[in-house]
Amino acid sequence: MKLTPRQEEIIRLVKEGQPVTSEALASKLGVTRAALRPDLAILTMIGILDARPKVGYIYSENPSRGLLYDYITNIKVKDIMGKPVFVDEETMVYDAIVYLFLNDVGTLFVQSDGYLIGVVSRKDFLKIAIGGTDIHKVPVGIIMTRMPNIICVQREESAYDVARKIIEHEIDSLPVVEKVVDDEGKEQYKIVGKISKTNITKLFVKLENE
Amino acid sequence: MKLTPRQEEIIRLVKEGQPVTSEALASKLGVTRAALRPDLAILTMIGILDARPKVGYIYSENPSRGLLYDYITNIKVKDIMGKPVFVDEETMVYDAIVYLFLNDVGTLFVQSDGYLIGVVSRKDFLKIAIGGTDIHKVPVGIIMTRMPNIICVQREESAYDVARKIIEHEIDSLPVVEKVVDDEGKEQYKIVGKISKTNITKLFVKLENE
Repeated sequence: MKLTPRQEEIIRLVKEGQPVTSEALASKLGVTRAALRPDLAILTMIGILDARPKVGYIYSENPSRGLLYDYITNIKVKDIMGKPVFVDEETMVYDAIVYLFLNDVGTLFVQSDGYLIGVVSRKDFLKIAIGGTDIHKVPVGIIMTRMPNIICVQREESAYDVARKIIEHEIDSLPVVEKVVDDEGKEQYKIVGKISKTNITKLFVKLENE
Repeated sequence: MKLTPRQEEIIRLVKEGQPVTSEALASKLGVTRAALRPDLAILTMIGILDARPKVGYIYSENPSRGLLYDYITNIKVKDIMGKPVFVDEETMVYDAIVYLFLNDVGTLFVQSDGYLIGVVSRKDFLKIAIGGTDIHKVPVGIIMTRMPNIICVQREESAYDVARKIIEHEIDSLPVVEKVVDDEGKEQYKIVGKISKTNITKLFVKLENE
């Protein structure tokens, strides 16, 4: 949004001498209090200024809070998720790493009968690769993180929720899943996408272009 | 920011029948045009509505553009950067990988005489680890990306600029550098921090809490 020169001047004056009363602002700007009222209303409303009764106006550090919050929580996982890359749990670690490079991803998802059973990351691969075992003879199933220890997200969660999970659990990439009940009445997860720090960083870049 | 019930109602009416003139809005809301003027001014100013002369008000899809833009471009690298982890170029790849795990990072920076000379990532390590060479006998200097092929950022650049570089160049982590001239009059870079997709994702989470 574009502020008017007078609004910018009001912000400057408040930053300089806060708290500042509307009387003081009016006299510094050489206008009446009534003339200032719309500007102060707008600046308070969008959160750039904070009006403290009987004290005056204070500059607020986080003017964009409300709109940002609305914006960020409105972006859903399904809007920014990417394509998952799969392997079977019988795939040998060496072959899985080659597949990782071929697809230029950092995480592989492991499924069985179309359901999520495991996740394996570049970090897991590096650990086994320097461990002295023969990675041509160890299957992915041995080193992967298994359900139910996998942090998942669903399509309708917000981008914000995902970012928080990524940071809290220190993960690079999460599977986007759909909960289904299989033929035996057991709850299972179908992988419908993946979402990573890269997707969040891309979203951040996109925010600026909107 | 919090909109008033009347402002919310105006937005709803505009979304429904855009373009909508101020006369039409006033009559639907049962108030005078003069009474609506402050609300329309605020909604237009913060970018939720767009006023088209002689046509009426239109709903804008990206209400937060201006504030978001200001906010994001105001956050500097120095506000969100993390601590870099260093190795020498003579460090053997195996030892460097162990060091990577010990420090729980994804990228190591290589310096010589206090200046940046290289960068090596988990991806580089994984590639050499499965390549069949003895990683106990290959130094980091052989596999690292060398100056001047390293994408750097400076403390005063915006978080947005960094996110853009990370996406454009497909890198996980960038060194934050300070340009200096060494004793021989040569331009060098001192590493003062690092910034990664993790820092951007953390910032994203922080945005919501602000």
